[in-house]
Amino acid sequence: MYPSSLQKLIEELKKLPGVGNKSAERFALDILDRKDQDIEPLVNALIGVHQNVKRCLRCAHYAESDLCDICSDTKRDNSTICVVASPKDVIAIERSGQYHGVYHVLHGVISTMKGILPSDINIETLVKRCDDTVKEVIVATNPNVEGETTAMYISKRLSEHACDVTRLASGLPMGGLLDYIDDLTLMKAIEGRKKI
Amino acid sequence: MYPSSLQKLIEELKKLPGVGNKSAERFALDILDRKDQDIEPLVNALIGVHQNVKRCLRCAHYAESDLCDICSDTKRDNSTICVVASPKDVIAIERSGQYHGVYHVLHGVISTMKGILPSDINIETLVKRCDDTVKEVIVATNPNVEGETTAMYISKRLSEHACDVTRLASGLPMGGLLDYIDDLTLMKAIEGRKKI
Repeated sequence: MYPSSLQKLIEELKKLPGVGNKSAERFALDILDRKDQDIEPLVNALIGVHQNVKRCLRCAHYAESDLCDICSDTKRDNSTICVVASPKDVIAIERSGQYHGVYHVLHGVISTMKGILPSDINIETLVKRCDDTVKEVIVATNPNVEGETTAMYISKRLSEHACDVTRLASGLPMGGLLDYIDDLTLMKAIEGRKKI
Repeated sequence: MYPSSLQKLIEELKKLPGVGNKSAERFALDILDRKDQDIEPLVNALIGVHQNVKRCLRCAHYAESDLCDICSDTKRDNSTICVVASPKDVIAIERSGQYHGVYHVLHGVISTMKGILPSDINIETLVKRCDDTVKEVIVATNPNVEGETTAMYISKRLSEHACDVTRLASGLPMGGLLDYIDDLTLMKAIEGRKKI
């Protein structure tokens, strides 16, 4: 019952993650109700993001020039590199405000199931970055089979380098309830217990 | 921490109804991850909807030519006009599949609070449409103060016309539970009770 242009927009909006028919309809009707000049910024932002955002030549995070904001920040500690699987993870760690080193963004993680090999995910450039000035490489891939495999592989590749290779702590999430936590996490939490 | 083009897109996406920071981020990262040719349909759909969708000259529903799909459908019963407050309501009624007449879309409802007068909402064209061929005008505005006011006004304006002016039934929603229904709805349901 919608005119075809509107239906086309609804179909396109439904491709966004987590957007169903109802939400896509609401978005499309909202966009239709706006004045012409009010949709220009949205259209320009859509085109702009594809034209301007590229990957940092050093760490492969999102960047608008050759180096990303973090790599070009002289205040960051270049002797610590945090390895993550995607740019989203950089944002998550930055949001915590606890980390002051630099990053290295992999193109995903090693997966024998999906046929993703170590050579596919930007590990070689990490190995090349790890010269004598680098003291620690924190592998912050997700705590699942593929993330662990990737961490093990990186640790092996860097075994002859002087830097330490570390992994984020596993354990109880803050505010979590002991009797709701899965067994594996609880096991990891007991294994990694600390003196108080 | 996002590059400015990406941040700009996130800000634009946050203007969509019901979209917060988290959702806008997910949408923007999804759009960024697509290939260039994959965002073209979305951009074109956005521009297209503003270029192609206008209002039907007869009923003011969304249309891509002078008349909307419903007004140009010769199988529809032109002697019954259903009056609604917005094009969304046309879609809702069409979805029910129970109505085979035509529509008249108002530009909202009369509201003394918001200073919206009868002359602002396209009622005059409705009065002009109601010639001798029209047998019934169903006022399907929402069952709230403003919707009722608008219905009363239309009924008065059409009092000298031959057509009946009716209102959608108020009562219990199907599948609703008696003890969860608000008092006003229950009162309306009792008032409008029918012989079985």
